[in-house]
Amino acid sequence: MAGKFISIRNLKFLLYEVFDTAGLAKAPYFHQHNKKSMDLVLDASMKLSQKMLFPILEEMDRKAPYLDNGTVKVHPSVRSIMREFGDGGWIGASFPEAWDGEQLPHILNCACHLIISSANYSAGVYAELTSGAARLIGSYAADRLKKTYLPNMLAGRWQGTMALTEPQAGSSLSDITTTAYPTGKDYYLLKGQKVFISAGDHDGVDNVVHMLLGRIEGAPAGVKGISLFLVPKHRVDDSGNLIFNDVVVSQVFHKMGYRGAPITELSFGEKEDCRGFLVGEPNRGLMYMFQMMNGARIGVGLGAAAIASAAYYAALEYSQSRRQGRKMGAKDPDAAQVPIIEHADIRRMLLFQRAVVEGSEGLLMQCALYEDMLHIAPEEERERYELLLDLLTPIAKSYSSEMGILSTSFAIQCLGGYGYCEDFPVEQYYRDVRIHPIHEGTTGIQGIDLLGRKVIMKEGKAFFLFLETVRSDIQKAARVVGVAYLTTQLENALKILEEVTAHLGDLGVKKGQEVFLADATLYLEMFGIIAIAWQWLLQAMAACEADNGASRSADLNFYQGKRYTARYFFAYELPKIKVLAQRLTDSDPLTIEMQSSYFND
Amino acid sequence: MAGKFISIRNLKFLLYEVFDTAGLAKAPYFHQHNKKSMDLVLDASMKLSQKMLFPILEEMDRKAPYLDNGTVKVHPSVRSIMREFGDGGWIGASFPEAWDGEQLPHILNCACHLIISSANYSAGVYAELTSGAARLIGSYAADRLKKTYLPNMLAGRWQGTMALTEPQAGSSLSDITTTAYPTGKDYYLLKGQKVFISAGDHDGVDNVVHMLLGRIEGAPAGVKGISLFLVPKHRVDDSGNLIFNDVVVSQVFHKMGYRGAPITELSFGEKEDCRGFLVGEPNRGLMYMFQMMNGARIGVGLGAAAIASAAYYAALEYSQSRRQGRKMGAKDPDAAQVPIIEHADIRRMLLFQRAVVEGSEGLLMQCALYEDMLHIAPEEERERYELLLDLLTPIAKSYSSEMGILSTSFAIQCLGGYGYCEDFPVEQYYRDVRIHPIHEGTTGIQGIDLLGRKVIMKEGKAFFLFLETVRSDIQKAARVVGVAYLTTQLENALKILEEVTAHLGDLGVKKGQEVFLADATLYLEMFGIIAIAWQWLLQAMAACEADNGASRSADLNFYQGKRYTARYFFAYELPKIKVLAQRLTDSDPLTIEMQSSYFND
Repeated sequence: MAGKFISIRNLKFLLYEVFDTAGLAKAPYFHQHNKKSMDLVLDASMKLSQKMLFPILEEMDRKAPYLDNGTVKVHPSVRSIMREFGDGGWIGASFPEAWDGEQLPHILNCACHLIISSANYSAGVYAELTSGAARLIGSYAADRLKKTYLPNMLAGRWQGTMALTEPQAGSSLSDITTTAYPTGKDYYLLKGQKVFISAGDHDGVDNVVHMLLGRIEGAPAGVKGISLFLVPKHRVDDSGNLIFNDVVVSQVFHKMGYRGAPITELSFGEKEDCRGFLVGEPNRGLMYMFQMMNGARIGVGLGAAAIASAAYYAALEYSQSRRQGRKMGAKDPDAAQVPIIEHADIRRMLLFQRAVVEGSEGLLMQCALYEDMLHIAPEEERERYELLLDLLTPIAKSYSSEMGILSTSFAIQCLGGYGYCEDFPVEQYYRDVRIHPIHEGTTGIQGIDLLGRKVIMKEGKAFFLFLETVRSDIQKAARVVGVAYLTTQLENALKILEEVTAHLGDLGVKKGQEVFLADATLYLEMFGIIAIAWQWLLQAMAACEADNGASRSADLNFYQGKRYTARYFFAYELPKIKVLAQRLTDSDPLTIEMQSSYFND
Repeated sequence: MAGKFISIRNLKFLLYEVFDTAGLAKAPYFHQHNKKSMDLVLDASMKLSQKMLFPILEEMDRKAPYLDNGTVKVHPSVRSIMREFGDGGWIGASFPEAWDGEQLPHILNCACHLIISSANYSAGVYAELTSGAARLIGSYAADRLKKTYLPNMLAGRWQGTMALTEPQAGSSLSDITTTAYPTGKDYYLLKGQKVFISAGDHDGVDNVVHMLLGRIEGAPAGVKGISLFLVPKHRVDDSGNLIFNDVVVSQVFHKMGYRGAPITELSFGEKEDCRGFLVGEPNRGLMYMFQMMNGARIGVGLGAAAIASAAYYAALEYSQSRRQGRKMGAKDPDAAQVPIIEHADIRRMLLFQRAVVEGSEGLLMQCALYEDMLHIAPEEERERYELLLDLLTPIAKSYSSEMGILSTSFAIQCLGGYGYCEDFPVEQYYRDVRIHPIHEGTTGIQGIDLLGRKVIMKEGKAFFLFLETVRSDIQKAARVVGVAYLTTQLENALKILEEVTAHLGDLGVKKGQEVFLADATLYLEMFGIIAIAWQWLLQAMAACEADNGASRSADLNFYQGKRYTARYFFAYELPKIKVLAQRLTDSDPLTIEMQSSYFND
């Protein structure tokens, strides 16, 4: 199984031609980087991916993790991969130098993770989780915890996790019951059960560090009584030895895909000897955890876009080489068959995939860039980037995940019967990518987050900033020959978005929360399409501008492809918002009126 | 794994309240049936499904077929299942009595197959293929072949297949090269290779009978040189013994799903000793095979709807029992959590599933009813039913298959993380149903069949018959209180369908075949939504009429559910045709102008 899983040319286009990543180096915070060093980082992640990750993609799927004598056994390569991630500085790549990080721009880190995840999503998850957990420790934990945990995690010796979900508390985090009992010492005794914990235990590391949400005994009910704890599988005693901390794996889930990484069920404190260390202040745990959750949500969107990328290139390769049929209307049965990419319907499916993959990548990098701006923008501008990032996070997560499924499904369709067989990797991609609209908050939860929280927060400030940002890009695009025709459509889309949002706001005031949020998922879908259209406008603009100066025919083809894909998106995808808008503004609350008993017979 | 996979109440509603199946018995051809005997047939297939098929659904997936010493080993139950299908008369159920069939109405047979396939799609395929092959033999083969093959196939002792696809001839059947050499005797010698042959070999039967497309040596190129052959794995010698006929299995494909049935690669005549018997006249094979292909296409749609049904009931059961979160806007964190079906977004997803499942079932039964009418309608009306059946076949196949995937995906989403795990059956359904837009002609092929052949044949006669039929139902519905509000929307949809079709017709004349058919898949999608809206109008009408007379509260709930689901379909699904229509009438041929090289970088 050899093949292309991502386009470096495209990532560089996004990094340097659409977004001015090289320009970030002008900021003191990023002074140690420049375009040349950035290219080296990209090359390094490509080499790592080609050498270590892609070759075992299939094997990690076929030999899924299993529970053996209280430990989860994973693919033997996981240990060397984690060490490679550690030694190469990948886990702390975007961390501040003060935490021994590389202070790499997030946008570049995002590109690297797209490479890694498109080569082997499961393999990348171990490091990504460790990175997120370490960031949480770096941000909020006491120095003594930082000192013990950060170096081991950044080196890839210890695994990080996020331990939130419980059997009765999945989407409803407020129902968490895992309890922390004060001991009067510098630790609590933890007791409870967590389920669906990614990389919750495995033999590819020497220790596992859980960032766990629980309740201090007697804390208020609901989200206001949730605290954050660091709970290691093995705690460190005064002499520096690792001692078992009463964290037991009770189950490894058998999943349809994403089988290279274990999802576990964990018991904490069955023997009353599980010590947890409070991170930050009591009862503010959910707020802290949102840092990791938001990062993980972007990470999930990224994973979905990356898998869709790998599936797209598999489909493209097949479509350019597989011969079947003749041009429509050709009559001579003796003529040679043509590559199936010559059929309009195959091109439509490939254009959809490219539009989803590169559009999602654009939006994810846009989010990463906003994160970078938090470090380098003047103090008074930072709120702007924070708000935009908050607003776009559920969209980047969900659009990439939901459309990533369809995109991967189209990849299978391009391969026909072969796509359904294990001889080609697309069937695995299809199974792998199905997790993404579920983990780190389902699409339904993201919809409620977007409409019920992000759009209305600070009296719509983030929402209005988004409109303003896109309109400013529309103004720039209107001056670019070959792109201007897209701007009217995008402006109309923004008007529809405004109208629908206003309508829903009114509805909420008049009819209450339930009616307001009934179709929040559709609102999210609509917003997602518009956000991706914006990204395609940016990409079409960059392609048009570059096109004029392009001399190599490969470049000309690439830019033409960009322009056609933008045209595709505006012709086939963007119009879908009208139907969503119609539904969102017709005020028949049928999903609320429908009764559970009407589903029975 | 116990649970409901289909609703008998709903099937009876469709059979007796929407379509007048009991009334068919008035026709002499169906004289031996009545409502009571029909109910008994339904009960029998339910018992068979619950007892033999559903219990091994998971096991047949986990222990997939494998090649062992030249024979494909399948689940040991396949043999008893085939015999049960044979002894119970299921294989020839809808065959004429003259062929030892039961002369069962197709519409009832369709309901039975929905039951069987929703219990275990793979298990039902063996019998369904045998039935299709036997029907082809009954229709076109010489008496001596009928005499030898039909009894063994109807008894479930011999497996039937359709052997069309070759490595270089998948969607492009005209490129078949398997060759038949005349011998001067009553058989030809066959030589060639076939791939993706469902149930092409297995140890659950004593023989396999391939209905194979090949070319008689020297036949013209293209479809005009294709003939139909009956090629058994073992031929029968003069003394009635089975002799190996040089048909060798070279591979069993490893598939993502649909793993209970083997898909094989076969070699015919490697040792120059493979005898095949011509069926019908030379060079007319494709025309004959279309009988089996059309039946199989309906069968594929049926399989997809059935799997979606099973997934829907699994999701419904989970949604009614799983508690998570509280009503939107509820503030008390100490209040008990509610079943997730109380959340509007879950209801929306369940309504979508129900709309797809029951809408598809309606359209499939509608097709089956047209097939029944071919037997009992006055001679001069038969063309009408034949044309409608021809027109609706690609739609019933593709809508059910494409939407079946989305429906099953929504079932997973209702279950969240659990839906992604093997503990629940929905992940298997999701893998199983992905085959349906591929086999028996991909969705792309169905689109070309619909727009490029069915809509324009006989100067649009089938198309106009469809419009006339739906409009006549609209007139009836306009008089039913509680349904009339749907009729305007459906009438508008028909107008859009007419406009788009006329526009495309013009475009074809002016710009040629390639432009005409470039978006045939979208045309198919649009037509499918309208056809299902029509079916939901019929169901809403029947529910409204019955509602008034309903006395049991269970019935009231059922009819309310029907009405809400129709309302859902018209509010959320039908409007999608506008976007499709916009794309189909905007004349930017970008998928044709896009070049293969633009996809490179």
